[in-house]
Amino acid sequence: MKVLEMPWLAVLIFMIAGLVNTPEMKSQSAGALALMPMPAHVTQGDGQFIINGDFAVELQGYKDARVASARSRFLDVLSRETGIPFFGTEMSDHAANFNVKTAGASDAVQRLGEDESYHLEISTNHVELTAPNPLGVLHGFQTFLQLVRITPQGFSVPVVTIDDKPRFPWRGLMIDVGRHFMPVPVIERNLDGMEAVKLNVFHWHLSENQGFRVESKVFPLLQQKGSDGLYYTQQEVREVIQYARERGIRVIPEFDMPCHTTSWFVGYPQLASGAGPYKIETRWGVFDPAMDPTREGTYQFLSQFLGEMTALFPDAYFHIGGDECNGKEWDANPRIQAFMKAHGFKDDAALQSYFTARVQKLVAARHKIMEGWDEVLQPDTPKNVLIQSWRGPTALAEAARQGNRGILSTGYYVDLNQSAAQHYLADPLAGEGASLTPEQKERVLGGEAAMWSEFVTQENMDSRIWPRTAAIAERLWSPQELRDVPSMYERLAVISLKLECYGLKHRSSTDMMLRRMTGKSEPKSLEVLATAVQPPEGYARGALKAYDNRTPLNRLVDAVLPESDSARIFGELAKNIVAGKASAQQWAQAREWLTLWRENDAKLQPRLNDSELTAELVPVSLKLSQVAAIGLQALDDLQNHHAVNEAALQDQMRVLKDAEKPEAVLLDMVVPSVRLLVQATGTN
Amino acid sequence: MKVLEMPWLAVLIFMIAGLVNTPEMKSQSAGALALMPMPAHVTQGDGQFIINGDFAVELQGYKDARVASARSRFLDVLSRETGIPFFGTEMSDHAANFNVKTAGASDAVQRLGEDESYHLEISTNHVELTAPNPLGVLHGFQTFLQLVRITPQGFSVPVVTIDDKPRFPWRGLMIDVGRHFMPVPVIERNLDGMEAVKLNVFHWHLSENQGFRVESKVFPLLQQKGSDGLYYTQQEVREVIQYARERGIRVIPEFDMPCHTTSWFVGYPQLASGAGPYKIETRWGVFDPAMDPTREGTYQFLSQFLGEMTALFPDAYFHIGGDECNGKEWDANPRIQAFMKAHGFKDDAALQSYFTARVQKLVAARHKIMEGWDEVLQPDTPKNVLIQSWRGPTALAEAARQGNRGILSTGYYVDLNQSAAQHYLADPLAGEGASLTPEQKERVLGGEAAMWSEFVTQENMDSRIWPRTAAIAERLWSPQELRDVPSMYERLAVISLKLECYGLKHRSSTDMMLRRMTGKSEPKSLEVLATAVQPPEGYARGALKAYDNRTPLNRLVDAVLPESDSARIFGELAKNIVAGKASAQQWAQAREWLTLWRENDAKLQPRLNDSELTAELVPVSLKLSQVAAIGLQALDDLQNHHAVNEAALQDQMRVLKDAEKPEAVLLDMVVPSVRLLVQATGTN
Repeated sequence: MKVLEMPWLAVLIFMIAGLVNTPEMKSQSAGALALMPMPAHVTQGDGQFIINGDFAVELQGYKDARVASARSRFLDVLSRETGIPFFGTEMSDHAANFNVKTAGASDAVQRLGEDESYHLEISTNHVELTAPNPLGVLHGFQTFLQLVRITPQGFSVPVVTIDDKPRFPWRGLMIDVGRHFMPVPVIERNLDGMEAVKLNVFHWHLSENQGFRVESKVFPLLQQKGSDGLYYTQQEVREVIQYARERGIRVIPEFDMPCHTTSWFVGYPQLASGAGPYKIETRWGVFDPAMDPTREGTYQFLSQFLGEMTALFPDAYFHIGGDECNGKEWDANPRIQAFMKAHGFKDDAALQSYFTARVQKLVAARHKIMEGWDEVLQPDTPKNVLIQSWRGPTALAEAARQGNRGILSTGYYVDLNQSAAQHYLADPLAGEGASLTPEQKERVLGGEAAMWSEFVTQENMDSRIWPRTAAIAERLWSPQELRDVPSMYERLAVISLKLECYGLKHRSSTDMMLRRMTGKSEPKSLEVLATAVQPPEGYARGALKAYDNRTPLNRLVDAVLPESDSARIFGELAKNIVAGKASAQQWAQAREWLTLWRENDAKLQPRLNDSELTAELVPVSLKLSQVAAIGLQALDDLQNHHAVNEAALQDQMRVLKDAEKPEAVLLDMVVPSVRLLVQATGTN
Repeated sequence: MKVLEMPWLAVLIFMIAGLVNTPEMKSQSAGALALMPMPAHVTQGDGQFIINGDFAVELQGYKDARVASARSRFLDVLSRETGIPFFGTEMSDHAANFNVKTAGASDAVQRLGEDESYHLEISTNHVELTAPNPLGVLHGFQTFLQLVRITPQGFSVPVVTIDDKPRFPWRGLMIDVGRHFMPVPVIERNLDGMEAVKLNVFHWHLSENQGFRVESKVFPLLQQKGSDGLYYTQQEVREVIQYARERGIRVIPEFDMPCHTTSWFVGYPQLASGAGPYKIETRWGVFDPAMDPTREGTYQFLSQFLGEMTALFPDAYFHIGGDECNGKEWDANPRIQAFMKAHGFKDDAALQSYFTARVQKLVAARHKIMEGWDEVLQPDTPKNVLIQSWRGPTALAEAARQGNRGILSTGYYVDLNQSAAQHYLADPLAGEGASLTPEQKERVLGGEAAMWSEFVTQENMDSRIWPRTAAIAERLWSPQELRDVPSMYERLAVISLKLECYGLKHRSSTDMMLRRMTGKSEPKSLEVLATAVQPPEGYARGALKAYDNRTPLNRLVDAVLPESDSARIFGELAKNIVAGKASAQQWAQAREWLTLWRENDAKLQPRLNDSELTAELVPVSLKLSQVAAIGLQALDDLQNHHAVNEAALQDQMRVLKDAEKPEAVLLDMVVPSVRLLVQATGTN
């Protein structure tokens, strides 16, 4: 077993049972640097640089407010990492032992492709960070913070030389604030997390059927009637943009059109293709309402609206969405049908293409480059329109062949509860992308993690984004050939802890939610159950239960992490056992896990009906126990080379088949590994 | 054993060991209401009011911005307590099922003694909160939030009628931001905690030898030279005052004088009695620098300064400190000595009395009532000067007899690592106070918890203030006869969890700090050690090790709670065993605790030298193991009625005596209970 991260429960049990003498948790080994994203070039030396109260950072060369505030934020995080107070080290009388040399200024508005490189040189008594402009300084600071670890000599960083720059210039995170609103502090702490892993684009999905989330002064009914009162004022938008800029992050707004626009129509029904009246959508899914592409009034409205919003958002790019039009309102409107006929539009896609072209002109007139989802790519789409691909690498490669630049989001949808490994291995230049010419490859600018918010609130969103988005950040920053999944998981565990220093709640929200479900301060047996289950992958959840925007997301499926570390590690154990490669210790560990899960139901079951939120877990807990019992039986059979009765085996398989069905919108993640074990007994 | 709160570790061990079938944790029993402070009158009915998405609060009668924002904050906290979204319930089309009836307005500036009463009536389908003014509404909202619990029917509050008003009108928390600065968000989350437990005075200790923490526009060198750059701008002060007002909390600034003033003298040495020059003090203790009470320039400065600050802080009271003058600078200054002689001042106290009288006139000229620590009380002190007593109930009673009003802080110093029970039982009208006449008793206005900040930073301060300050809040609000310590601890555990919904970090900071000490994500054996130790009480810490304001507070003593729940609960077990009243289950529990502590060293010891921050714990861990082993032996001897060899007993006592000495500035809290057990074996 590769002990990537040993869950504390298992550890504690080993401690108590006294079965094994493993260390509690694998330490970050001296040799391996827990950096994420891994820099382009790292050369390790001998020794370490000790961080103590004498630590002082001097800024040399080009200076501006951003570099100064970056230093002060750097010292803040370093204080949180170490508990050493660094306030006022500017006023220190020590000679600085950390020199930052910035060659020149950055652009006034951060530009796609601006130089982000830096050089970090750490010796035993001195640190030097050099960069062509402040962007590299920001990145170098974050690299240094990741290197900090506790040692017998105190907090230190290893002697190392790092030359670093990103593989892709566009490394983003999209947050959908339309379906569930996210207050400014939630956005800001996620911007902090983005900076920590060197992401540089915050894509703000600001309007949806369920809510229009930004103040328009020109068309105030957009937010007044198009939201439940939860939206960002323009002042808040400016603050977020400034906050992002300080962290080397561009902000791209998205106003999705012509569909996903129900909320616009509540206040401005004249924009719609249907008769109205419209109400803010409360359910999830694809809906019919669509802007009317045939009326000039639509473009007059959009021209004014885009004038206001392109002024508010300084970035050169502007996202107009364009996804998921079902065309039903167009099909049902005789006037629109007549228009299509008159213009020779053979289908709804052609009509949307006309709309997109008109909007593109409006965006271009404001000196912005338009961005849209896959659907905006048509044969006559202008070459400077940027395509964000949710359909996949093939669509992205097609855009590149057609001469358009693009970014990948397929594979990076962090709402879909996929493993960090799946995200990590998705590459913007994989599949079709690999066959592109070098010139075409240049058009693939990077990618974006996408946090759609049907099933997250401000409470648990961090736990969907983090730490898995750090693996995506590495994919987009680090050399393409870096694909070592065990190394990724090992480093991800360390980075996940570090991200807590940035105020992210991806780890603490689970505990809080489990406590709330039970009203108890340490609901340990519920935690044991939580280690073994996972929300279903993909879009299964919405099909399992009816949800809308008022459904409380306060159940176990909302509290548990999208990827069960325990199940993953147990899965490794099971694979080793089946392969005949497991050590005695690994056999014992597998047995301990299964025993824990088998015994847990007896403790948990009597309490489950005490809370409405846990009552639905009655079968989940029971089945976990049954599955674990089967697993233990299989371990016995394997260890004793006991020939298993075919009928008994089929019985077990039936139980497993039943247990793998979602229950309380949760998957029992132990089942696949136990099935492996049971199957192996068949060959005894 | 009264299972007040069963620590999770013990629980988990029982689960795993399968020894006992106790529930994980005692639920809040249906009958007991976990309210703190306990209201003056509570009448419980049958049934409960279910909280679901239909919940809607309507404001009736007098309305203002404070009541409206109180409702929205109430709904926010209720959302965090339940996970149910309540945003936009103002726009709900349901009829409100929670009616708030406010009779009239509060004073524009909250006044001491303003009516804070409220009446809360909860039936199965309706809630009514009535109050004479918004202050009662704020309190009633908090009471409701404390009543919320999860049940098989969902989140609910019990049917109950509450008539409530405070025993004392002055219920405060003092935070010293001079020694360690506390940023605005830290102050604000503590104001949230204060509101939750109905405290109504935030006493802001703003200047100290180690730092002057507020911007003066008239004398800018105060903050510029008198701080390390960490101070509140006047705008921030106004924001905090507004934040406090919204929560029914008055803000009293303290500018300590004529001593504790080194930081003033860095920029304005002419105020001092010594020759200077002065530097900001970095160490802790009582220092010599004092204002010069003999020069008119001092009063001219203070007149201008008080003019500025009394305008900034709207409260009617203004705290001028006045504590801990050692008089050394006065004694060493011939000019001051001559002045004293000329005026017939027989000692430094008389000189300070002259100073205080002059300052009192300046404060009164600004239409403020002066407040000071015990020392400002002299025979000729004006009767309207308010005395804050740190010397104790006798001094407070003396002030009351002399005609001055006063508040108690003795017994409420939360920096001294005393138990919640000790704080809880300290009563402003105990001791000498009990013998006051009714009229004199009226002069005892209440009390204030005091958070001196030598040994706290923004990271761990919450864990010193909370949850113990909730017990102090109950002492000051609830009827005097309420003194049931077990009930207090039971309710305190529930309130401690609730306080997390207000953003307080009193529970989460320990975990974070233990992780940082080890670099590991779940340092379980360190957590086990942490359950058994405590910082020393009182002022012992400063004597054990040299500290200054740059010493990192990042060790186990800083991470653990001031009161070990585990040791307290184990202590109850030990007492029951010795008294011959323990059940078989309690014997088993005691044995499990001791086994856990005995075995822990073997797991923890090999890791301790991996981190500079844990290396000092080598003897702490070892001794805990030894003490636990002695305890286990004693349990065996007691159970077997084994006559114990006197010499062996003396040996054990010697080990215990050694183990009770502080080590790494920590006390082993298991020792006293093990000693009890060992002593009991002597009578076998």
